[in-house]
Amino acid sequence: MTMTTIKINTPPPYLTLARDEHLPVVMSVAGTDSSGGAGIEADVKTITAHRCYAMTCVTALTAQTPAEVFKVHPTPKEFVQKVLDVNLQDMECHVIKTGMLTVDAVNVLSSKLRSLPAEERPKLVVDPVLVATSGCALGGSDLVKAIKEELTPLADLLTPNIPECFELVGQKSKIASMTQLCELAEKVSNATSCSNVLVKGGHIPWDDEQRKYITDVLYVGSESKCIVYKGNYIDTTHTHGTGCTLASAISSNLARGFSLGQAVYGGIEYVQNGISIGCEVVKSHITNNGPINHVYAIEIPLEKMVQDECFNAHDIVTKSVTLDQIPGEGDFFQYLINHPKVKPHWESYVHHDFVKQVAQGTLKREKFRFFIEQDYAYLIDYARVHCIAGSKAPTLEDIEKELNIVGSVRNEMGQHEKRLVEEFGVKDKEYFQKIQRGPALNNYSRYFNDIARRGNWQELVASLSPCLMGYGYALINQKKFITVEEDDVYYEWCQTYLSVWYQDAMARGKELLNQIALTGSKAELDTLVTIFADVCELETKFWDAAVNYTSN
Amino acid sequence: MTMTTIKINTPPPYLTLARDEHLPVVMSVAGTDSSGGAGIEADVKTITAHRCYAMTCVTALTAQTPAEVFKVHPTPKEFVQKVLDVNLQDMECHVIKTGMLTVDAVNVLSSKLRSLPAEERPKLVVDPVLVATSGCALGGSDLVKAIKEELTPLADLLTPNIPECFELVGQKSKIASMTQLCELAEKVSNATSCSNVLVKGGHIPWDDEQRKYITDVLYVGSESKCIVYKGNYIDTTHTHGTGCTLASAISSNLARGFSLGQAVYGGIEYVQNGISIGCEVVKSHITNNGPINHVYAIEIPLEKMVQDECFNAHDIVTKSVTLDQIPGEGDFFQYLINHPKVKPHWESYVHHDFVKQVAQGTLKREKFRFFIEQDYAYLIDYARVHCIAGSKAPTLEDIEKELNIVGSVRNEMGQHEKRLVEEFGVKDKEYFQKIQRGPALNNYSRYFNDIARRGNWQELVASLSPCLMGYGYALINQKKFITVEEDDVYYEWCQTYLSVWYQDAMARGKELLNQIALTGSKAELDTLVTIFADVCELETKFWDAAVNYTSN
Repeated sequence: MTMTTIKINTPPPYLTLARDEHLPVVMSVAGTDSSGGAGIEADVKTITAHRCYAMTCVTALTAQTPAEVFKVHPTPKEFVQKVLDVNLQDMECHVIKTGMLTVDAVNVLSSKLRSLPAEERPKLVVDPVLVATSGCALGGSDLVKAIKEELTPLADLLTPNIPECFELVGQKSKIASMTQLCELAEKVSNATSCSNVLVKGGHIPWDDEQRKYITDVLYVGSESKCIVYKGNYIDTTHTHGTGCTLASAISSNLARGFSLGQAVYGGIEYVQNGISIGCEVVKSHITNNGPINHVYAIEIPLEKMVQDECFNAHDIVTKSVTLDQIPGEGDFFQYLINHPKVKPHWESYVHHDFVKQVAQGTLKREKFRFFIEQDYAYLIDYARVHCIAGSKAPTLEDIEKELNIVGSVRNEMGQHEKRLVEEFGVKDKEYFQKIQRGPALNNYSRYFNDIARRGNWQELVASLSPCLMGYGYALINQKKFITVEEDDVYYEWCQTYLSVWYQDAMARGKELLNQIALTGSKAELDTLVTIFADVCELETKFWDAAVNYTSN
Repeated sequence: MTMTTIKINTPPPYLTLARDEHLPVVMSVAGTDSSGGAGIEADVKTITAHRCYAMTCVTALTAQTPAEVFKVHPTPKEFVQKVLDVNLQDMECHVIKTGMLTVDAVNVLSSKLRSLPAEERPKLVVDPVLVATSGCALGGSDLVKAIKEELTPLADLLTPNIPECFELVGQKSKIASMTQLCELAEKVSNATSCSNVLVKGGHIPWDDEQRKYITDVLYVGSESKCIVYKGNYIDTTHTHGTGCTLASAISSNLARGFSLGQAVYGGIEYVQNGISIGCEVVKSHITNNGPINHVYAIEIPLEKMVQDECFNAHDIVTKSVTLDQIPGEGDFFQYLINHPKVKPHWESYVHHDFVKQVAQGTLKREKFRFFIEQDYAYLIDYARVHCIAGSKAPTLEDIEKELNIVGSVRNEMGQHEKRLVEEFGVKDKEYFQKIQRGPALNNYSRYFNDIARRGNWQELVASLSPCLMGYGYALINQKKFITVEEDDVYYEWCQTYLSVWYQDAMARGKELLNQIALTGSKAELDTLVTIFADVCELETKFWDAAVNYTSN
């Protein structure tokens, strides 16, 4: 038998920042979901993803998948009692969140809460699980009665969906306007003696002229106020567990000390992200439902460890095989722009109408001004991402390359300032700080921020390249058709990207792309291709936004 | 009733990177721990913290806290059967991890696994929960027999602690050496027909001359190989749930496709970090045990959302109150160095013996060389952190300030190169890339990396200041006592930090500290104080390492 020794890292640096961390504690009182997407499993996942500490009190075991609830095994009353007793006796508890309950569990929990002195009583968030997302009614009238009479008067927040609201107020009503939705929330508040009610509107998307949207409505009784949270409707059936997740996310935010309005905002966005991103974990025969992604923001610990200064187990970590030659016959840039994933986006980008109209002088001035302003704001983000690329670059030489670009960006911003002052009469220096950011810019910036946070140096370089290369190629494509007068700002703008220093910068950009192409495995190169394609699309949309801009 | 509308962010940028993410799926077959630190709750937390998808099969409910197991309610056999059936029928499953089992659960699970075609069978990690961390035996001889005969022959990994090894091989033996530990692992492998066995040694710390350490030993049957993972012994009683957590972390790593050796490394480090950082969630009368921190690496979603470009609910988010004047009578630097938390560290730093010995020419040359080499490697990290500070700085002007410093760092590195070439005869240019990093440098770098990743601009500025300011003050303190010859490299080194350009840099550093002092609330300033103190300590240890260096 051979023996090798590997030293595990000394304690990590965050030790200095956080020791014996006081984690906010949330107890979920609910049924399980064996398949993990809803119930107490969704609660524990959500609370964990919020950097809080989860405790549980299981009211019933279920054998279920997103397809069906196959079997339910309720927990004996005295066992529920014991769990609540010992958890609250030995552990801190800041918020209790309830999900699927039995009448027994309601009795036990409400008595327990009433027996505690007010100052020791955890906050209570009640998700009245009466009607599941699938539409099937889970509770009987006894349960509705018990919840309304015993539990909701103690609650800090109640989170029914619309069918549950009808159950709780005892009658259906028409919901055809936001006002009617707010009124329903108020009615539920009165019927349940719970001051704060969040009515979840995910079941009924509203129709705007442009697109569908959904609204969740928070009624705040103490202020007789309604906050309408307006979100995008996402066309998917993968919504298993959204109710449990929302209530747990709000509970986690409350446990951390955020206000009710903030906690709800954070909860809704967390659920929306989880739905939008989604996950594939059901087998292919299950087509009508699936769980949301609870972990979209979590980093993979072992990947982080390998990057740590003190990591010393490289010999047991399989290194990815790097390529021995640059794809595209030694020209990675050509490989990229001819890749089937990239090509359509690259072509729309470098043959964009925006550039044609500028070259020919036909673009409305207000559209050009809008572009310059958005681009000005963009360039600050672009500079920041180059800083981060610098921080991740392999050698000091590479670091300095990135930082030199920041210098060029400063020049480009200076030119934009000059254009805005000379052509568009901007006088106030403060003006540049107050530019209103449009959606195309925001999407682009958020994409950058995401890559900056998660990506490695290669990925950052790939994300920064389309801007550098595309402006050059777009102008090269138009070079013969530049008909605008030479004293026009449009002409001057065109010439910037045809200048010698810009073509030089592009040549250096191509070298850098070759350099990164050699450091990755095939799978890693595929990621670079995806990023390059994504950013070409973002660039196209950036110019679309300018062409479509109207000042009214 | 008033009504306000808040728009929830459009889908986040990572949408483009990850949609319908194929999450690795781990099913935990185990008992619950109502208080959340161990059992299925610890499993779900761990799997979630590894960005994997958790499913559950509850073998028994327990009412327990870190103090005691109060009540157990085993799940009926046919219910366990149903859960396994539906989970494996409808859901993907890459790894099954078992914890506390009943004989029924062993029967059902092993039959189920045998019934699956080999290519559809998930990997199996068996944590034979027979003896808890507290020492109390959980299973009877029937259970040990069932596990050994039915389950472990199917397992890819078995993770017993040492008492469990004795149960499994049927006899105790003396463990006084690493070889005996490896032999025990091999015996367990033979007794259980499981090729891979990880023997957890957390129960018995070894005594080095310098400090205690613990070892986990992985026996890999197919290669007749033993890997010894050597970790620091952490003196704490807060270890509730470590066994469950380790097996779940390894399972998550395996589900993601890491090799066994890597998966085990990652699991051990995750548990060590969780223990070291710890959390306070038990009430004060529970003094002898507590859970580990599963969420130490997770970011708080709502805090991230507020930083997003598209966040538009600032009016419902309470802003922290910023100070209206700079503490320390307008000189934040003076406030910092006189703060009781900082003062002792600052004083040891700026009156360090290293500088005295250099100034007087008494420091051994090999120690100075060691310092220069460590400092050279340090400066690259220092430059990187300035890049990140630049990326987080509020204005373009602030960005450029940070980047200018990177230029100065380059100069300083050039001076170091010159010293190593001229004074110490370094010839090979490659030499500078291959400097061996010592522990003081590593600790400092890891601290930097942590702040860079999590911290805001203010925190980064605070972490970068002690280096800049301290070298200046240390030399000012020694100025009168510089007795070394003027043609000595020691003299030249001293003069660097007394030069006009360095004093200028310090003046700008002080201005920057005043600038950041005005942007924070009281609580945020306290964090800056802590960081400044921490880094002064790291600087002191950096010089300690040089003074204590010996070449043999």
